[in-house]
Amino acid sequence: MAKSENETPAPIRPVPRLPKGFRDISAAEIREQQAMLGKIRGVYERYGFEPLETPAIEYTDALGKFLPDQDRPNEGVFSFQDEDEQWLSLRYDLTAPLARFVAENFDKLPKPFRRYATGSVFRNEKPGPGRFRQFTQFDADTVGAESIAADAEMCMLAADTLEALGIPRGDYVIKVNNRKVLDGVLELAGIDPASPSDAARRLTVLRAMDKFDKFGVGGVALLLGKGRKDESGDFTPGANLAPDAIAKITGFLSASEGDREGAIARVMPTIDGNERATNGMDELRQMSDMVRASGYGPNQIAFDTSVVRGLEYYTGPVFEAELLFEVKNEDGQTVRFGSVGGGGRYDDLVARFTGQKVPATGFSIGVSRLQAALASLGKKSSDTLGPVVVLVMDKGEVAAYQKITQTLRAAGIRAEMYLGSAGMKAQMKYADKRGSPLVVIQGSDERAKGEVTLKDLIEGAKAAAAIKDNKEWKEARPAQLAVPETDLVAKVREILARHET
Amino acid sequence: MAKSENETPAPIRPVPRLPKGFRDISAAEIREQQAMLGKIRGVYERYGFEPLETPAIEYTDALGKFLPDQDRPNEGVFSFQDEDEQWLSLRYDLTAPLARFVAENFDKLPKPFRRYATGSVFRNEKPGPGRFRQFTQFDADTVGAESIAADAEMCMLAADTLEALGIPRGDYVIKVNNRKVLDGVLELAGIDPASPSDAARRLTVLRAMDKFDKFGVGGVALLLGKGRKDESGDFTPGANLAPDAIAKITGFLSASEGDREGAIARVMPTIDGNERATNGMDELRQMSDMVRASGYGPNQIAFDTSVVRGLEYYTGPVFEAELLFEVKNEDGQTVRFGSVGGGGRYDDLVARFTGQKVPATGFSIGVSRLQAALASLGKKSSDTLGPVVVLVMDKGEVAAYQKITQTLRAAGIRAEMYLGSAGMKAQMKYADKRGSPLVVIQGSDERAKGEVTLKDLIEGAKAAAAIKDNKEWKEARPAQLAVPETDLVAKVREILARHET
Repeated sequence: MAKSENETPAPIRPVPRLPKGFRDISAAEIREQQAMLGKIRGVYERYGFEPLETPAIEYTDALGKFLPDQDRPNEGVFSFQDEDEQWLSLRYDLTAPLARFVAENFDKLPKPFRRYATGSVFRNEKPGPGRFRQFTQFDADTVGAESIAADAEMCMLAADTLEALGIPRGDYVIKVNNRKVLDGVLELAGIDPASPSDAARRLTVLRAMDKFDKFGVGGVALLLGKGRKDESGDFTPGANLAPDAIAKITGFLSASEGDREGAIARVMPTIDGNERATNGMDELRQMSDMVRASGYGPNQIAFDTSVVRGLEYYTGPVFEAELLFEVKNEDGQTVRFGSVGGGGRYDDLVARFTGQKVPATGFSIGVSRLQAALASLGKKSSDTLGPVVVLVMDKGEVAAYQKITQTLRAAGIRAEMYLGSAGMKAQMKYADKRGSPLVVIQGSDERAKGEVTLKDLIEGAKAAAAIKDNKEWKEARPAQLAVPETDLVAKVREILARHET
Repeated sequence: MAKSENETPAPIRPVPRLPKGFRDISAAEIREQQAMLGKIRGVYERYGFEPLETPAIEYTDALGKFLPDQDRPNEGVFSFQDEDEQWLSLRYDLTAPLARFVAENFDKLPKPFRRYATGSVFRNEKPGPGRFRQFTQFDADTVGAESIAADAEMCMLAADTLEALGIPRGDYVIKVNNRKVLDGVLELAGIDPASPSDAARRLTVLRAMDKFDKFGVGGVALLLGKGRKDESGDFTPGANLAPDAIAKITGFLSASEGDREGAIARVMPTIDGNERATNGMDELRQMSDMVRASGYGPNQIAFDTSVVRGLEYYTGPVFEAELLFEVKNEDGQTVRFGSVGGGGRYDDLVARFTGQKVPATGFSIGVSRLQAALASLGKKSSDTLGPVVVLVMDKGEVAAYQKITQTLRAAGIRAEMYLGSAGMKAQMKYADKRGSPLVVIQGSDERAKGEVTLKDLIEGAKAAAAIKDNKEWKEARPAQLAVPETDLVAKVREILARHET
């Protein structure tokens, strides 16, 4: 057999890559996130919530996204079949698994049941700038409390959380509305919020109302009527409401504008005595009384009847945590940072399982988005120093260098021995790349004298910038210090103390 | 139309349940785990590792479990297709995603690259007692270091981690072996460790050697020969080796038994000068010298040539972190707790992508299993007190109770207002179920006087146990204290200080 025939074919090598919408998170961002999650956890704990962790995988029907007229779970959710052919899904939020947990353990739980949870959630959606298919949420929920006080508490929790993260009062606001008010206004416009046949039109109208901030009365009126063409020429079909119905809705929206504290009073006449809306306004007034009595001003928690908030399942008060400071968006335009979290009352989620209404309310933070906000505010905890690097000057003495390293670690000092095979220069480059504050050097001369040399890299970099002459540099050897091996820990601590902030 | 025909059918309600092999984690366990992860992180950081987070979802081919002769990813992995029909999988460990990350970012990374990572991994396997389909690992890896010092360091890291978690010296051991030694012994027995046609037999032999602890020389000899029937009558087919080949292997295994420090010397004659094995023994000796020089004794890190350790991809030193204390297993038998983590050198994982060999070594902890070990050792951090509960005595005054609650929270005290609708007795039961140390009560009399009553539930429970007479109880009202509202925070702090440990 010829040699060429005997050769094994070149193996097919996979390309190292991530699916779109997924990302690796770097050390600096992880450390920031850890610090942030710790602060959020601190506030949630202070409010008396208990941690709960549910798995990332649930039965699709338990998460409630399985449409009966399809043989596959619907889009937006990552789903796959178990060995027994039952459909499983990755959780798309932390609320649906909570409803499953409460329904499953109802009798055992204290009532109300108050839990917080954080973890990855997954959306099988088209990713975009800042929109990922895996991201982290941090939720608090109170299940089994009908009292509007539970909703008021969520708003105070949201405000306290943002302030604990260092967002100054005035740079955020928790906007509060009530779905009952919106549904009442829909009734006034001739749409039955409870009728399945009106469901699609209801969504179109709510979506139009949600654009009030952006398009104003004129734009919303178009979206409620025949439709609206935007600047690029794209046409959004409208809800085809009659002119008087449109007027009812835009009148309501206009009344919600202006001085925040007066909004509730201004809106009242526009709801025309509708029972549902009046009931909702009454709840908003109660919430307002409660949060004001606890000392939260309109610059922290504001009542804004134009807030819609997307998710289908809300049934009462809804809240949106908005950051008010401005940033540049991807197109270079200056925009308000916008929503970093929200929530509301959902009284029907547990009933999906049990048939029994279990009133519930919750608040959820989008962790990465809030982290991006903190970064753009310049709220960064100080940079972590890299480890002390013990250089390997003599490969025959690795055990001795490792012992030096272990001595530092045993003293609680972050340290590592250089583990590659390169020479002195490359080792110094490595230490630099790792952000090391100092390196430990022991050549044969130093070992004979029982000494080590400590080289302060931060001081050294400053000195190098000041000294231009190479000869002068070599003579001065700035930021370099020979110490007896027995003083190693004490001297390293001294240098680190100079650089820790 | 008759009314009965007009009724909507009863909705089909999903059963609230989890798929098998998944579980909810309770507050107490989450708190223990947080504390534990913090301690592990502390040690890993001290060793100079940097955190890295990769997503839960990767391309199946990048994780390397896609068998070319199947049109679906193989079993053991949760997989599903993306919109573009490419296969995605949930990560089954943290090492395969690291290899993808390193291959993808090779030029940018400092070399060696040292990272730690923790997170959920997923196995689509049959669950059993203590075996879940989602669990947490905590890994440290050094990529790009050929030096055996990197492996020695992993063993010291493992020992330091277990001790940082409070496992006493003597209750654990890091067992170290080298795949090269095992492969050399296989060569002596006539099996080519590099030949694909010998791959199945190699696995059978390694699996048999792994049973040495359990079955001894006799049992292993049967598994290497014709096979072994166990007590229940189940027959395990053997590797069908010839008697002299079996003798080589059992001779090697027997030599590894006994005094740990002498194991390397005792094993040497049994490897018969085989080059591969000699090379492996040499590495073991170097590792031994290094860890001993750094002060780690054989009661911490021991060299045991009978250790196999499962995963296919190891190419050099392998380590197993074993807990030596005894516990009862599910069948009520007393057994050693066993492995809580392990790792080893894998020089081929990055080469899957790049073709270029990148030497690497790592250590991985099974977090839940280690947590179970700590629990059975009685290593629990103190129980967290529940929140202070502010009772609602008068529903018209909810805003006032909420203000009291916010005052406590603002002072950093964990507190909540009762948010349900039940009466006084049920509210006290709720406080009890939440583990509250005290409740705050304000009835109309107290409000008129500007006072609140603090009821110490922990003290109260003790007093109740001592007082039998109901009348005496009512008169004494033990552990109950009326204080001016202005002293609320100070007095609550006083009571909490008595109960915090």
